[in-house]
Amino acid sequence: MIIVLRLSHRPGRDERTSTHCGLVARALGADEIIYSGEEDSNMIENIKETAQRWGGKFSVSYEKSPRKAIEKYKRKRFLVVHLTMYGLPIQKQIRKIRKNKKVLVIVGSEKVPGEIYQMADMNIGVSNQPHSEVAALAVFLHEYFKGKELDKKFPKAKIKIVPQKVGKKVVEKG
Amino acid sequence: MIIVLRLSHRPGRDERTSTHCGLVARALGADEIIYSGEEDSNMIENIKETAQRWGGKFSVSYEKSPRKAIEKYKRKRFLVVHLTMYGLPIQKQIRKIRKNKKVLVIVGSEKVPGEIYQMADMNIGVSNQPHSEVAALAVFLHEYFKGKELDKKFPKAKIKIVPQKVGKKVVEKG
Repeated sequence: MIIVLRLSHRPGRDERTSTHCGLVARALGADEIIYSGEEDSNMIENIKETAQRWGGKFSVSYEKSPRKAIEKYKRKRFLVVHLTMYGLPIQKQIRKIRKNKKVLVIVGSEKVPGEIYQMADMNIGVSNQPHSEVAALAVFLHEYFKGKELDKKFPKAKIKIVPQKVGKKVVEKG
Repeated sequence: MIIVLRLSHRPGRDERTSTHCGLVARALGADEIIYSGEEDSNMIENIKETAQRWGGKFSVSYEKSPRKAIEKYKRKRFLVVHLTMYGLPIQKQIRKIRKNKKVLVIVGSEKVPGEIYQMADMNIGVSNQPHSEVAALAVFLHEYFKGKELDKKFPKAKIKIVPQKVGKKVVEKG
């Protein structure tokens, strides 16, 4: 069970990046994304619709307080992993992380409050260079699942892609 | 030599996602990014500045016509890989791709013109689910370099992070 917690969403400004976090979480094997920051029911509805159309099980929700969300999942014995360029290298920590079947992965926005670093069980860097929370999340999930997430099935999809050498093949069900 | 070609940039609307493509390319081992679409010298300057401050060698440039860029690198014997959710699964193609030391990786925006699919040597999907070009690029580079890109050194950096269990440690030179 992998749950992603996206911090400090701002409607408008962060819409695309936050949406990408949600879609990446779903496509690369996570079970749920929780958004904190400002509430953005349009964005959440859009991701829910995409998830339903493309199949599989994926939950999307909003929780105003990231602290509350973190405390809740700590009580449920999730390992809390905060992805940050300041953290310890993922390549040296991933084995330890994989031992946990329940992980809450926190992805930040531009400024992450200090208490998040304190509350996390692990602060983990996907490289210590500046790049993108979307990319960090993707590489984290890919490492956690050892690449097997790419073969994940999405049952009850209304729309499906049939991989092609050239061009597009899409199958839609009524 | 890995060069990323980012298609159809629109200043404003795509600024953050396109910037993330550039930073991910740099952080995860590519040598260069070329932007096409509308020219955006501010964005390009920002990425150049970041690259200089954080060290290593990384080039950023603009080319109005993606077709011209693709033709140029085909003449230089680059393998042209287009990342698209409609393409063949990366996990089945990556060994073949890795045999090529020179790769031009194309990452699209919302609508990619049909001719890009035709011009590419390979159309490759990082999953066939909708998610994010930033994430697709990150997983592609991570697979191509087998994770070794995470240990990449960035010489002559003016700023550097020292990985920490908790909190931030940044070393700045002059």
